[in-house]
Amino acid sequence: MTATFAPRGSKAELEAPDAPFAPKFDADGLIPAIAVDAEDGTILMQAYMNAESLAQTLEKGEAVYWSRSRQELWHKGATSGQVQTVVELLTDCDQDSILLRVKQAGGGACHTGQRSCFYRKVPVGQGNAVNLASSSYQS
Amino acid sequence: MTATFAPRGSKAELEAPDAPFAPKFDADGLIPAIAVDAEDGTILMQAYMNAESLAQTLEKGEAVYWSRSRQELWHKGATSGQVQTVVELLTDCDQDSILLRVKQAGGGACHTGQRSCFYRKVPVGQGNAVNLASSSYQS
Repeated sequence: MTATFAPRGSKAELEAPDAPFAPKFDADGLIPAIAVDAEDGTILMQAYMNAESLAQTLEKGEAVYWSRSRQELWHKGATSGQVQTVVELLTDCDQDSILLRVKQAGGGACHTGQRSCFYRKVPVGQGNAVNLASSSYQS
Repeated sequence: MTATFAPRGSKAELEAPDAPFAPKFDADGLIPAIAVDAEDGTILMQAYMNAESLAQTLEKGEAVYWSRSRQELWHKGATSGQVQTVVELLTDCDQDSILLRVKQAGGGACHTGQRSCFYRKVPVGQGNAVNLASSSYQS
């Protein structure tokens, strides 16, 4: 399958409400993709897609990412059962980020068993950044 | 200011519920950051932070990104008034992505005037990917 997207236009063309889909891939050929639970809005995970995985996502209606660690297409849930059925796919103003609203199968998105990969908070304020290295925090 | 974060440990160490904050920056020194409205969960935008902007975000309690186009620190809202007060900052399982729950000032996050940068949907299913180049779609 060859993924065919629109050529990148001017800033105004890219941002227009009726602009054609012209996703921007970075120097490694990737675009970040954020998966959100379509039912309650929980942010489930953030991964990356290349043109092929984005095209497959649009065709299958299921999230297909690019695994940077394995350097291969990653049909989410194909082995784990954590399939993400895409309810809605959005792009941002300059079309260099993807948002997926998904129906999450398998109880959650994270391989750790957590429903969301974002299961830990980092303390904010009062100069915490300089102290975090030596302190632990609770989720 | 020198940003001090924990060294990257093993996969198990990085994923532990009480792991120290050891964010992973990519080859360009950046980590993606997703901003969500803390009140209603709307996904507002996705940008990037470097170590300095992440440290400033933690210290100020306001979102500071790294502008890739301008190659400079970007204290969101400093000129536009669209300041993002950080209510909560989270990281994901392998600590290579940041999620901010923010109180958004100025009516929205997007420079286009939209509340969210993700104001356009891309049709999913039935092989749309190959046709998108020549078709427009509605938000």
